[in-house]
Order: sequence, then C-alpha cells, then structure tokens
Amino acid sequence: MFTCDKSRVEAKIKDFSKIGDTGGGGITRFALSKECLEARGYFVARMKAAGCAIETDDLANVYATLPGSEPGLPRISTGSHCDSVKKGGNYDGILGVIGAMEVIETIVDQKIPHRHPITAMIWTNEEGSMYPPALMCSGVVCGKFDKDTMLASKGVNGQTFAQALDASGYKGQEKNRFAPGAYKANVELHIEQGPVLEAESKDIGVVPCVLGMVNYRIKAYGQSNHAGTTPMKFRVDALYAAAQALIYLHDELDKLDPALVYTTGEIVCHPCIHTVIPNYVDFSVDARHEDPKVIAQVVDIITNKMPKEFAKCRMETQKMWGRDTVYFDQELVASVQKYADEFGYSNMRINSGAGHDAQFTASIVPTTMIFVPSKEGHSHRESEHTTLDQCWQGVNILLNTILEVDGK
Amino acid sequence: MFTCDKSRVEAKIKDFSKIGDTGGGGITRFALSKECLEARGYFVARMKAAGCAIETDDLANVYATLPGSEPGLPRISTGSHCDSVKKGGNYDGILGVIGAMEVIETIVDQKIPHRHPITAMIWTNEEGSMYPPALMCSGVVCGKFDKDTMLASKGVNGQTFAQALDASGYKGQEKNRFAPGAYKANVELHIEQGPVLEAESKDIGVVPCVLGMVNYRIKAYGQSNHAGTTPMKFRVDALYAAAQALIYLHDELDKLDPALVYTTGEIVCHPCIHTVIPNYVDFSVDARHEDPKVIAQVVDIITNKMPKEFAKCRMETQKMWGRDTVYFDQELVASVQKYADEFGYSNMRINSGAGHDAQFTASIVPTTMIFVPSKEGHSHRESEHTTLDQCWQGVNILLNTILEVDGK
Repeated sequence: MFTCDKSRVEAKIKDFSKIGDTGGGGITRFALSKECLEARGYFVARMKAAGCAIETDDLANVYATLPGSEPGLPRISTGSHCDSVKKGGNYDGILGVIGAMEVIETIVDQKIPHRHPITAMIWTNEEGSMYPPALMCSGVVCGKFDKDTMLASKGVNGQTFAQALDASGYKGQEKNRFAPGAYKANVELHIEQGPVLEAESKDIGVVPCVLGMVNYRIKAYGQSNHAGTTPMKFRVDALYAAAQALIYLHDELDKLDPALVYTTGEIVCHPCIHTVIPNYVDFSVDARHEDPKVIAQVVDIITNKMPKEFAKCRMETQKMWGRDTVYFDQELVASVQKYADEFGYSNMRINSGAGHDAQFTASIVPTTMIFVPSKEGHSHRESEHTTLDQCWQGVNILLNTILEVDGK
Repeated sequence: MFTCDKSRVEAKIKDFSKIGDTGGGGITRFALSKECLEARGYFVARMKAAGCAIETDDLANVYATLPGSEPGLPRISTGSHCDSVKKGGNYDGILGVIGAMEVIETIVDQKIPHRHPITAMIWTNEEGSMYPPALMCSGVVCGKFDKDTMLASKGVNGQTFAQALDASGYKGQEKNRFAPGAYKANVELHIEQGPVLEAESKDIGVVPCVLGMVNYRIKAYGQSNHAGTTPMKFRVDALYAAAQALIYLHDELDKLDPALVYTTGEIVCHPCIHTVIPNYVDFSVDARHEDPKVIAQVVDIITNKMPKEFAKCRMETQKMWGRDTVYFDQELVASVQKYADEFGYSNMRINSGAGHDAQFTASIVPTTMIFVPSKEGHSHRESEHTTLDQCWQGVNILLNTILEVDGK
C-alpha cells in the first residue's frame, strides 16, 4: 500500500484556506468568482508542475491529467469542487480537490507505476450558491440538466452563469467533457457533513449510495383579518393550521424507519404581520432514505393520510422534486472498504444524505465516494473541521483505491 | 333629532375613492403622499366653502372650524384620517373624515343652532404605513410619542417624516394643537374592521373602550445542520420547537375568557432553507382583552407556565409592548347609545380591538367612537365595504351626539 505526504496535504489545506478567507475561520468562494478563479489558478499551477496536461470543457470543469504508461487506456478521475457557500469552511469540496492533487503529487513523487491516465478534477459550481442549482456542471455533463437553462441562471450579482463562464478564462471545448468510455472510474473524497462518523468514533466512511429523496411543499389557506377585531370563532388562521400540520407530519414520520431523515426547514407566512391573521402559510418537507419503499410511505403520509384541513384551513401539498437512491459501483465500494480495513482505519458504511457531483457521474461511469468525519457535524459554515490525520487517511484510501482500479 | 344628507355622504365617498384609486376597488394614500395631499385639498376646499376656518398644527393635523354662537367656548371636534395602507379600502379612516365634513355641511345647510365651535379634523399618519408607527401624530399631540423620534421616522421612499412634513405645505404652529381646555369633546366615526356587527346583524356599534393588549415574541434556539446528513436523534430543530410552542399557547389561551383575542401572525425562521435544520425561529403573540386580569393570565401563561424547552430547543420570551384598556367617556358613550336607540338603529356594545387616534385623545379630552359594520369583517384591503345606509346612519348618530354635547 502507498501513503501520501501528510505535511504536503496540510500545506494545501492552509494555502486554499487563504483564498477567499473570511477572517472568521472560513472562506467565501462563489463559483467563478475572483476568489474561486484564484483557487483554480493554484490548482492548475501545481498540477502543471507535477507534469499534468490541463484541459477544460464547455462548462469550465477542469481536468489535470497525468499520462499513464499504456497508450489508449481510459482515464481514472478523482476530484470535487473549489466553490463554497457564503461563509463556508475549509473542507467541503476543496478536500476532494486537495485529495486529487495529492494523489497526482504522490504518484509523481514516489514514481508509482500506473497504466491509466490519472485525472485530477475541479467541477464547476457544485454549491449553486451564486448561480443555482447545486451540482450544476456535473449535472449538465452527465445529462441531468439542460445546458441552456443553466447558462441563463442569474446570480444575485446580476450576472448570468453564461457571462461568468465567458469571463472566467476557463471555458473550453465540449469534447473535453467527462464521458463514458473515456473514463474508467471516478472516486470523490468528501467530508461527511454530518455527525455520524464522529459520534461512532470512525475515521473513514465507506459510502454505498446517495439517498433517494422527495421534497414537498405543504400549503395552508386561511383568511386574513385584523388581530384586534376578529373574535376567535371567526378566525381561519393559516399559521395555526401549518403548525398543526408540521406537528402531525413529525408525529407520523417518526413512526417510520429510524434511518429516515426528514426536515421541515423553510416556512413562508403571508402577510406575516403581528397584527394580522395569516391567510397563507407554506413549509417544506425534505425526506431522504435509501429504500424507495420508505420514501413511498412518506409520500403516502403527506399526500393521503394527512388531513385535508387543519384549524378550518384547506391544506394542499405539492411535490417539488425527488430523486431515486443512487448506488455506487460495488467493486469500488469494496475497494474503499478493503483499504480502510488494511490500513486499520476505523470505518463504517454510511449512506450519503447530501448530494454530490459523484451522484451524477455514477450514472455514466463507475463511481464511489470516501467520507471523512466532520467535527460536530458542522458543514456549510466557518467552523467546519476535519483533523489533518483524518484528511490524510482519506487521501491514502483514495490513492490506493485508484491504484487498484489502475491495476485491473 | 337631525339627519344628514345621504346623497351628499355618497358623493363624498365616491370623490375620495378616486383619489389614489388603485384600479382594484380600493386606494393607496400613504401619509403626506401626493394622493394624500390631494385628499386634504378636497377636504379643505369643501370646509372653506362651508364657512370653516382652516388651521394646521406642527404635525400637519388639519382643523376646519365652524364658529359657534357663544364666544369663548371650547371646540367640539370630530374626524379621523385620510391616509391608508397599501391597497386599502374606501372606508377605513376616511369615513370618519367624511362624517366630520357631513356634520359641518348639515349644520350649515340646515342652519342648526350651536353654541360651541365645531371642528372637523384630519389626523396625520394614522396608519404609519410609510412612516411608522401607527397613530403617529395623535400620539405626539396627546403626549404618547416623542416628536423628534417621530420626525426621524424613515419611509421606504427614503424620506424622513420631517422631510415629508416640510414638503407638504400643511405644517403649522404647535399652538394650534388639539389640547385639553380648548376642546370639550372628541367623537370619531369609524368602520368596525371586524365581523361582529355584521354577524350580529347590527348597524351601529357603541364603543365603551379600546382593548388593552400585550405583544410578546416567542423565541426558539436550535442548531443548524444539514437536512440529509443529520440523523433525527441529533437534531435540535427550532421550527419544530416553535410549532409546538405555538400549539401550546393556542391550547392554553383558548381556555381563558372567550372574549380574549390573540394572534400568532408573524414568524421568522433562520436560515429558512429547505435543506437546513432551522437554528432560530421566533413568532409574535398579540393578545387583547378589556380586563387587565385576563391580560395578566395571558402573560402568566407565556412567561411562567409555558415550558422553557420544546424539542430540545431552549425557549425565550420577550415582551415587545403593551397598553392598558382605554375607557371612553361614559356620558358620550351613553349619548351614542341613546341616539342609536331613538333612531331605531339596531346596535350593540362592542369594544375596539384595533387602535385609533381616539384612544389617544381620550387621555386628554372626553372622547368616544361610533362603529359601523365592515362587510365580512374586511379591512386594510380593497374589498373593504360598508353600505351607504350604514354610513349615513353612523353620521346621523355622530351629528346628534355632537349637538347634544353642544347643548350641555
């Protein structure tokens, strides 16, 4: 087995943490922003120095490829994203980029023989924080999203994604896209973004799948009237109804499989004035589970079992979107498992509840992910933290998994 | 008893409905806006034509005074406001101004003898929709609000109230203010803004008081985490906690006196993203009742009885403001009651749950109000409606109540 250089991993973590530094322990690097382009520049410079050829595709996804010893073989890719949410941390996404760079640098430094080209990647606009949606450019490349629709996505900066792309200097040719045939496998290292590995005292998460999910909107229709002049018996209060519906859903969903996660995270109230009875309220329900039968139970509770009226308010439900569970390649998952065991790293199987670029690449090229712990489960905030040892262990698994694929 | 001219009342309702016409059946006339100044111009022109002297005070409150037959007597005032909320109706406030104008025009037209000067009034900025707070200028005149603070109030138009006042052409002298001694009584005709008179099939509301109230904010503190990666047992969900607290309060407050009205109308959720567990939610509780003992029960439930924790979230409560019940002058209330009975208008006692300029004038000059029905309880919207007959009946009560005060 091969191991990478812990101090070199540390140096890269530190260097990237300075690019878009918020001063509060984290970074802000919106996709294709000045800070994000600086991070790409750092990646490109180091990968060129390691002997990689640099390509970009029409979505500005970056491919740094180290040639292999046998001509004509497909590439093995690894990477993640260098964009962040506002006031994000120093690990989400970028650790997968650092891992990819470290794989290349270790192979070069230790002159590790490899037959296939190895490609370190940066996926453009994973977060979708400036130009929604999330997973934008892996989505286009893997046929999930319409390119023209994505190009028209407008940021709060007033710019479209197309304009940002043109100005980035990273727009390349469509023929350079990640594609079946041209790639043999893809492995993404990522932080867990949840509390499970830490709570279970495990250093490595072996990831069999990305959970299927549904997203609904629950709507309550009331009547808007004056807070002081309307006796209680005349009221049709949409917020009171929505609160009852929210409690009902928690009560019922809590009875389902304990591995189900569901979230009522967003609420809209109209007119939302303290002296006016609300006439309209809606809230979101996001539910995720590996098993489509459990997701079907969730949908049944929301759309059939839940009363059509609470507190005299008519209720409506609307499905916003859903996705099926994405299973990763079993051989790759087994390979991650094997190296975690052989290195003696504590590990466990953990499904991904969050979305990742790898869930899209999985549909066209054999793919898996490797998770490392998130301190206190923190993610998408400045306090995000994974220890250097855990990062280094994650990269070691990544390196050996890729080299095993190379040998097959 | 005297009766006013129904067709003249109708004409004024129609004329005012054109000033700031939204095209949707209502009007928008923010305080001291172009439309509001046009409405004031119409008032001033008609009152001048009726023989009134026009004065304004330092807050641009307008006083149109018809002299009485005995020199040196204090004035009897009546009036309301001509400003509106955004997309308001054709009755809230302006009906009290129309009523005051009609009283003057009827007295002049029918040459009704009267000893005291009769003053028709427009109070500036009752709604507070552009320059908060509501009841601004009666509040300053009656010593409830600090003038300098009010002058600094900034509208979403970027202008301060002081700037709007200077530009209005209606800024007069402080010595012209409504004041004890100079005024013998004040009577305000207003729409109910609630559904009670209509539901009880009554045409006139005799108003003994404006309800006391308290306003609290209920706050839930949770932990923000990722919707997909955080198992349910790790969650500290502030929206779930807030929904439980809201239901708890409804359950407990519903056990108190049935005349209590309370409203949970405003909710704030943070970060309010469907993929993130909320870490902070607060909502408003506005509770109104005549009896301070009932208000004390409400406060006890909110601050003592309510659990300090829901769904693992720490709860906090904050008192935002409160007011005591304002009782109107018993003789004036009895006078309204008497004329409603003598005219044979169906009537009932009804407390005002909403705030009105009259609640402030009551603290310095004997005051009461007269309510007429609001169709379906609608108020602060374009669909606001009171029938012409009901308006006319309200003005008849107003006229005779004022003339009775004049005779005493």
